[in-house]
Amino acid sequence: MSTTIKVLAKKLNLSIATVSKALRDSHEISAATKLKVIELAKQLNYVPNPYASSLRKRTSKTIAVVLPEVADSFFSLAINGIETIAQEKGYHVLIYLTHESFAKEAAILRDFQSGRVDGILISVSGETSSSDHVQEVIASGIPVVFFDRVCEDVQTVRVITNDFESGFAAASHLISKGCKRFTFLSISDNLSISNNRLAGYRKALTESNVKPSEANVMLCGNDPEECYNAIKKLLKKKPRPDGIIASVEKLTAGVYRACKELGLLIPRHLKLISFTNLPTAMILDPPLTTITQPAFEMGKTAASVLFKALGKKNNPLKKETVVIPSVLTIRESTQ
Amino acid sequence: MSTTIKVLAKKLNLSIATVSKALRDSHEISAATKLKVIELAKQLNYVPNPYASSLRKRTSKTIAVVLPEVADSFFSLAINGIETIAQEKGYHVLIYLTHESFAKEAAILRDFQSGRVDGILISVSGETSSSDHVQEVIASGIPVVFFDRVCEDVQTVRVITNDFESGFAAASHLISKGCKRFTFLSISDNLSISNNRLAGYRKALTESNVKPSEANVMLCGNDPEECYNAIKKLLKKKPRPDGIIASVEKLTAGVYRACKELGLLIPRHLKLISFTNLPTAMILDPPLTTITQPAFEMGKTAASVLFKALGKKNNPLKKETVVIPSVLTIRESTQ
Repeated sequence: MSTTIKVLAKKLNLSIATVSKALRDSHEISAATKLKVIELAKQLNYVPNPYASSLRKRTSKTIAVVLPEVADSFFSLAINGIETIAQEKGYHVLIYLTHESFAKEAAILRDFQSGRVDGILISVSGETSSSDHVQEVIASGIPVVFFDRVCEDVQTVRVITNDFESGFAAASHLISKGCKRFTFLSISDNLSISNNRLAGYRKALTESNVKPSEANVMLCGNDPEECYNAIKKLLKKKPRPDGIIASVEKLTAGVYRACKELGLLIPRHLKLISFTNLPTAMILDPPLTTITQPAFEMGKTAASVLFKALGKKNNPLKKETVVIPSVLTIRESTQ
Repeated sequence: MSTTIKVLAKKLNLSIATVSKALRDSHEISAATKLKVIELAKQLNYVPNPYASSLRKRTSKTIAVVLPEVADSFFSLAINGIETIAQEKGYHVLIYLTHESFAKEAAILRDFQSGRVDGILISVSGETSSSDHVQEVIASGIPVVFFDRVCEDVQTVRVITNDFESGFAAASHLISKGCKRFTFLSISDNLSISNNRLAGYRKALTESNVKPSEANVMLCGNDPEECYNAIKKLLKKKPRPDGIIASVEKLTAGVYRACKELGLLIPRHLKLISFTNLPTAMILDPPLTTITQPAFEMGKTAASVLFKALGKKNNPLKKETVVIPSVLTIRESTQ
């Protein structure tokens, strides 16, 4: 059994209030009593209850990270970055997964209003199209920093990568390789990252006189099998796309599988470029051309910004966007 | 600013103690006062502080997951499994990464003795060779369940996969494909999983008269570049190994890269089999033969076992091992 104030009080034949005051070095308690209490506390390895301590200090030494999923190389690397900073600062990290559900995300944020965490890092779900839930938790006094997937209208800091430029670079690269009919695979109509990547893609098409049309964008769902089937259907169309930009990692495997199934060769029949942090990109068949986000750095930066705001009386986070650029790595899948 | 008991007390011109007692429906407070307090609390959207609630109930509604890293498909899928159960039960999940350091792991577990969490799921670090830190936290009244990487001598439940049989199956498969000199890539001398996989591997070698020797096991470090260089050095040796078993996912990419660099063909010059949950295994060049652990199921099962123990007065977890089998999937890398 762990040593509590109750145990100390019983052993010393003192009241719980007296022991508690002695441990807090209260002036109401005599020096002799304090000494007795502190000696026994040491001897019995008494550790103060963190929640009692949280109540006194009105701080939980905990931050929350709210994100769609962990089984994705971007998010797992971002968590590593966040955790590096949190550990330096002596903070605990609570991880909450929304599984791309807005309802879940809103419920999680509502719960935070009760003061379980001192600050929040969030990358919003694919369904999130309004920001009231974020505004409310900020209004309750808890600072929030966005990373990667953001709400544009919230008064706080956003740590993102250059999604527009990356979408532009991806499309320009495909155009330079001779692609004329290519498709942008998206996972959401709402997401800032998808929309910015898509806008960059459209700009590259307009500039190069490849006519962009709605048909050039395909919205994929969350289920990998569904995605795979949708991609297979897309690749059976006549005329077939000659290039694909996969806007998130989980869409990549489906394209490889569908090509294999249909006997299409990458890059001869279809050029492919993906937004991904997969360490296996270079050993795929064929090696994959990637836009790699600075996941670890984005996590570290978002956490550093949040820690500057913790413990400040008035939330000092102004509307600001920090952009850390992504890197295009050209490999065989687009040659 | 969020509504606290202090705010309610001030607005109602009552003492904090009175408001607190009224909210807890104490018999010391008149019905009229209770009504006033509760109405204002509703009006101002008062949410009880979870830490105050934790102190009263002596439960934090939080479990901890302690693991080496998240940027690994096994662990990220296991977290998904754990989180599924925790969300069903209305619990919060704190994630702690040890980055394979025993010192960090011991410090994290020591901190738990203060009662921050109600229960712990742990997969130990590659450096962990003693279990005192786990025994102590259990002795302090907090139940612990191991998953995947376990301490054999602790009186509690272990949720593992059939590592011995999987090591045996991997080696037997390579032998059946004609391999005679193969190497087992390990990341730790201490880890239960490595040792059990290795024991299975040795057994298969003994049974088939392929002579196992110490030279057939190579210990790799944590750094991917170091691993890559060590593997390259191994593949330059004469005679060269004709097969490799990678005992953890992060060793896989190094083998592909080294073979490419040295002009060796998989599977012609070297057959490769990996323990991994990588969704890209089937689209690697060549597609990878894998031992896939039931990561999601292991996470779910470990969490379910832990939740059964929470809130019980005497820790009901007896020494028990739950084994969920892995699956061998044969692809081109061993043909």
